Amino acid sequence: MIIVMSPGATEQQIEAVVKKIKEYGCEANISRGVERTLIGAIGDERQINQELIDSLSGVEQSMHIVKPYKIVTREWHKENTVVDIGGVPVGGKTVQVIAGPCSVETQPQMDAAARAVKAAGCRLMRGGAFKPRSSPYAFQGTGIEGLEMFRRAADEQGLPIVTELMDVRMLDTFLKWNVDAIQIGTRNMQNFDLLKEVGRVNKPVILKRGMSATISEWLMAAEYIAAGGNHNIIFCERGIRTFETAYRNVLDVTAIAVLKKETHLPVIVDPSHAGGKAWMVPALSRAAIAAGADGLLVEMHPTPCEAWCDADQALTPEELFDLMGELGGIAKVIGRDI
Amino acid sequence: MIIVMSPGATEQQIEAVVKKIKEYGCEANISRGVERTLIGAIGDERQINQELIDSLSGVEQSMHIVKPYKIVTREWHKENTVVDIGGVPVGGKTVQVIAGPCSVETQPQMDAAARAVKAAGCRLMRGGAFKPRSSPYAFQGTGIEGLEMFRRAADEQGLPIVTELMDVRMLDTFLKWNVDAIQIGTRNMQNFDLLKEVGRVNKPVILKRGMSATISEWLMAAEYIAAGGNHNIIFCERGIRTFETAYRNVLDVTAIAVLKKETHLPVIVDPSHAGGKAWMVPALSRAAIAAGADGLLVEMHPTPCEAWCDADQALTPEELFDLMGELGGIAKVIGRDI
Amino acid sequence: MIIVMSPGATEQQIEAVVKKIKEYGCEANISRGVERTLIGAIGDERQINQELIDSLSGVEQSMHIVKPYKIVTREWHKENTVVDIGGVPVGGKTVQVIAGPCSVETQPQMDAAARAVKAAGCRLMRGGAFKPRSSPYAFQGTGIEGLEMFRRAADEQGLPIVTELMDVRMLDTFLKWNVDAIQIGTRNMQNFDLLKEVGRVNKPVILKRGMSATISEWLMAAEYIAAGGNHNIIFCERGIRTFETAYRNVLDVTAIAVLKKETHLPVIVDPSHAGGKAWMVPALSRAAIAAGADGLLVEMHPTPCEAWCDADQALTPEELFDLMGELGGIAKVIGRDI
Amino acid sequence: MIIVMSPGATEQQIEAVVKKIKEYGCEANISRGVERTLIGAIGDERQINQELIDSLSGVEQSMHIVKPYKIVTREWHKENTVVDIGGVPVGGKTVQVIAGPCSVETQPQMDAAARAVKAAGCRLMRGGAFKPRSSPYAFQGTGIEGLEMFRRAADEQGLPIVTELMDVRMLDTFLKWNVDAIQIGTRNMQNFDLLKEVGRVNKPVILKRGMSATISEWLMAAEYIAAGGNHNIIFCERGIRTFETAYRNVLDVTAIAVLKKETHLPVIVDPSHAGGKAWMVPALSRAAIAAGADGLLVEMHPTPCEAWCDADQALTPEELFDLMGELGGIAKVIGRDI
Repeated sequence: MIIVMSPGATEQQIEAVVKKIKEYGCEANISRGVERTLIGAIGDERQINQELIDSLSGVEQSMHIVKPYKIVTREWHKENTVVDIGGVPVGGKTVQVIAGPCSVETQPQMDAAARAVKAAGCRLMRGGAFKPRSSPYAFQGTGIEGLEMFRRAADEQGLPIVTELMDVRMLDTFLKWNVDAIQIGTRNMQNFDLLKEVGRVNKPVILKRGMSATISEWLMAAEYIAAGGNHNIIFCERGIRTFETAYRNVLDVTAIAVLKKETHLPVIVDPSHAGGKAWMVPALSRAAIAAGADGLLVEMHPTPCEAWCDADQALTPEELFDLMGELGGIAKVIGRDI
Repeated sequence: MIIVMSPGATEQQIEAVVKKIKEYGCEANISRGVERTLIGAIGDERQINQELIDSLSGVEQSMHIVKPYKIVTREWHKENTVVDIGGVPVGGKTVQVIAGPCSVETQPQMDAAARAVKAAGCRLMRGGAFKPRSSPYAFQGTGIEGLEMFRRAADEQGLPIVTELMDVRMLDTFLKWNVDAIQIGTRNMQNFDLLKEVGRVNKPVILKRGMSATISEWLMAAEYIAAGGNHNIIFCERGIRTFETAYRNVLDVTAIAVLKKETHLPVIVDPSHAGGKAWMVPALSRAAIAAGADGLLVEMHPTPCEAWCDADQALTPEELFDLMGELGGIAKVIGRDI
Repeated sequence: MIIVMSPGATEQQIEAVVKKIKEYGCEANISRGVERTLIGAIGDERQINQELIDSLSGVEQSMHIVKPYKIVTREWHKENTVVDIGGVPVGGKTVQVIAGPCSVETQPQMDAAARAVKAAGCRLMRGGAFKPRSSPYAFQGTGIEGLEMFRRAADEQGLPIVTELMDVRMLDTFLKWNVDAIQIGTRNMQNFDLLKEVGRVNKPVILKRGMSATISEWLMAAEYIAAGGNHNIIFCERGIRTFETAYRNVLDVTAIAVLKKETHLPVIVDPSHAGGKAWMVPALSRAAIAAGADGLLVEMHPTPCEAWCDADQALTPEELFDLMGELGGIAKVIGRDI
Repeated sequence: MIIVMSPGATEQQIEAVVKKIKEYGCEANISRGVERTLIGAIGDERQINQELIDSLSGVEQSMHIVKPYKIVTREWHKENTVVDIGGVPVGGKTVQVIAGPCSVETQPQMDAAARAVKAAGCRLMRGGAFKPRSSPYAFQGTGIEGLEMFRRAADEQGLPIVTELMDVRMLDTFLKWNVDAIQIGTRNMQNFDLLKEVGRVNKPVILKRGMSATISEWLMAAEYIAAGGNHNIIFCERGIRTFETAYRNVLDVTAIAVLKKETHLPVIVDPSHAGGKAWMVPALSRAAIAAGADGLLVEMHPTPCEAWCDADQALTPEELFDLMGELGGIAKVIGRDI
């Protein structure tokens, strides 16, 4: 950690900072410049309470040098981690497309969806049984019954399933129905109690980025899961909130490249929630794979115009099939397959 | 709801929209303009699934006319609602300042804090027993033991207490320790399962704005609580996330004026988390009260430079005392008192 | 235009709105709903002063239905416009990569740069003679002398040139040196006097998106140029400002897809300024072309680590060469070439 | 400047950085930590080209310690600067409210406006002759004729005038009509050629904050003016662009407190453009003065509902009069007057 003292800082103030640094078990390196004195804290700076240092008189600002996350960083773990979802590897050479409807509605809808997912060449299926809706008056999901329908439809096609967990009290039910990967939604990225719980189980976790979460906060949220012992984490970029109102979110493709550099864990992209309209999905999907994403989480519905939610952003089975073809071409250009 | 058809929309497409509107129990009013046809849905438009309408072919866009929230809106409830926290009214003529440390540390710290809160003239006390921290390696709060210390210190001074609930499983404990007002933090504003639970109890809820939540999403989050039967809700603006990095958040004073117009519920402000530095708190507090806030949630610590968290943003007891004087002057200018 | 009246609006207020609409030459269509009355203005609603309508008593809000731009919209001009820069077509089947250094430094630097641009297979060259720098103490560009060096180096390789115009008073000089395409920088996207001037000349204009300009404002800025008679406009997405600080800007790939739908004019992308680091450029470039961009504006310097500005974001000649290969592969997947 | 080397940086890479630092006339201080080596550059670090340092191999990141602005910073100029606008001091104990219409329309309108400004107790008048409008088809201002009408109306009441300059070529005309303070609008905050020109004249400049300009960029824009010799600069906060769409901009009151700490120059606020609606202006004005602003720039129109632009955000003469009373009360609480 570097501590920058104010121009007029006194010797006494400098000594107080040095004393505090030593209390945290670090050594201090003082560098007296023309305008300002800098104090470097050498040792395990993660021990230092930065807010407390900042509150000392004479301190102008302080900066961490070491990254605050340990397990998820690529710094100490150079090779890519491949996460196994029910036998399907995510994060390896093969790009994985997880497709399915926004929400589980009925058994026939899920059966049709599962067939379409399989027919398009996808190996993993998504679907929501518990839905986070902005309005309490909107459809809240089919719940446990939905989980059951989902499991049945996917099993018939041999597809592992991915579904969102919103409430810690439902974790046992997820385990009972053998959900293959637990999705943590954008609104729960910093629901720390939920992160701690999924950190204790032995199931892959797909961690969506908070609507306006920084890369650093996102990595720290993953570290919460990892710190509990569960290192099977997949990041999912789903668009961020900005000033732009012409589309729902701004898909942040730069985040893909930056995450692949910062962490050894897989990174996938949700192009459906990013743009919010089905017609944007192919362009965003191609961009995501071209930028280096390890996979996609795509909404597809057997009959979008009858969907109970997100009707305007779901692909049809045919559109998904066509998209898979395009993505295969792009994957090949960058030395991957699909 | 207004549905705008694309310039080349066919009669068949228009009819399909009209048919769908009628399925939702509304009437359709068609207006054929020079460039576009508009269709108005007359009736209870909250029943209409907007995404589904948008997915119909020939539809360019649709807009809701009626507000999606019912209970929290001022439209049907003109008078200000006054929420009672342990006998102290929030939302009336008197501005209420809720003060106390970021986190509960020790009994002597809480005792000193409670005395300082009382001495400054405040009538409500805050303090965190369960702390949402970005890092899993940071201090996570003193937990249930902290609640106990807080209750004891506040009771001695006759101060009702406000503290944050992060985990649904802790609600019974909060009720057992008779927490006077339950705070829902910024990261949980859209933790819908938590909102539903606090909607079922008979305790005031202070609902902090999500880091980048729109006014509309915030009102809908309150509606989640209200829909459960608990109408004792207080909004708390705490700064929003923007592009600016010179300070932690941008305190949104416009939100105060807009909320006071949109809802009958009280609106308070947290100037400490907004700016992130103690020296900014007086200016932001004055601005909040001048803009019409019903109260403040302020961090004060008996000895800030020893605080276990947020050391750089806590006021000293003296600073809180002085601030109360200034705020009294401003309250008077706009016909209120403190 | 749709005008939504407040719930309690009186007949007199409704009549006042209707009267005002008629003053603007439009007809009014009144639709009385259960909760609110809506008034539709039928005719050329672009004539209506929306702010004035909003100021009338009893008006809750108003919404434009018709797009405010006329010339740049695809609504009345379905086919793609191909803009010719010194004989090179932008916006057709072939993706064009405009490469070159951030700033013109010396004749040998420009000569080496031009050779590298040509060798990589690019057909257009960029370079800045006048530089917008955030600090008045930073290098401001080599000015007119720079233009001259640029022209000479590019001519030797037969490359048309693109360079930024910051000051209206320099336009004649640009014409004198026969700049092939005039770039309007992000900070000048709403410098309306500059837009008007380049609207009067017969030269292609590359209009960069303002740092936090909406798609609608960007289209309107282009409309300023078009309204003057110059329809040779190319949009250039260069990353937007958000809350994220891990990289300079967030490249908005969704904007590419949306613009291609909204306007008939070409859309290119500047991956260098978007990410701000050379190592991000290949990933962002691939994403841009995969999303449908008509070209790129890329920084390349013969020896980046000696560059006078943007040293950390320029590709080397070898990196540019390799990138062109990858982009060719991606272009092919979506039916284009490079 | 602090340069942080990557964990595996070699001795050779460290030496290359040290060599480069010395080329810029600085000394290097090397500090070898457990995980990383830090290099401090001691001397006038403003000479160092940061981008070039960042491009050297083995460099992870670098940070400036010294502020990039010199003249506008309070660091070397502790006392408040009072800027004189035609005899009226801005930045002293007295809060100044600059009022007037959005745009100059007619002589009678300006005469009535000037009388109302005077009657309300304001000492300075605003009004736009050249208008930056997002649409080329919207009213663009009455131009030079407008300046003349403005001058005449204001002179009659003895009010110095403030008006916006958009085009460098109009500067002489502004001087000819003796505009008392030149306003630089939000869209031109980084129009560096315009800043340089107003830096050469001896007239106060009111520099509005760019729509999404950071505090640091804003200070640098002022430094551009100051570097030319003109130190009569007043900052004007006018709301920033965020994700929120319920109001036009978010008034950033934190910026007032931060700027008053960072610079010795006066800071005023435009509450009219911030909120965008007249009913929000009183609350925002009170908040601004309570937060420590040195004045306001407020839109007032003799008959708002006939205004040619911004009809919905102008106060009436009566509303301005009432507001001045409230602001006087708030000014008094913080030891100022109006």
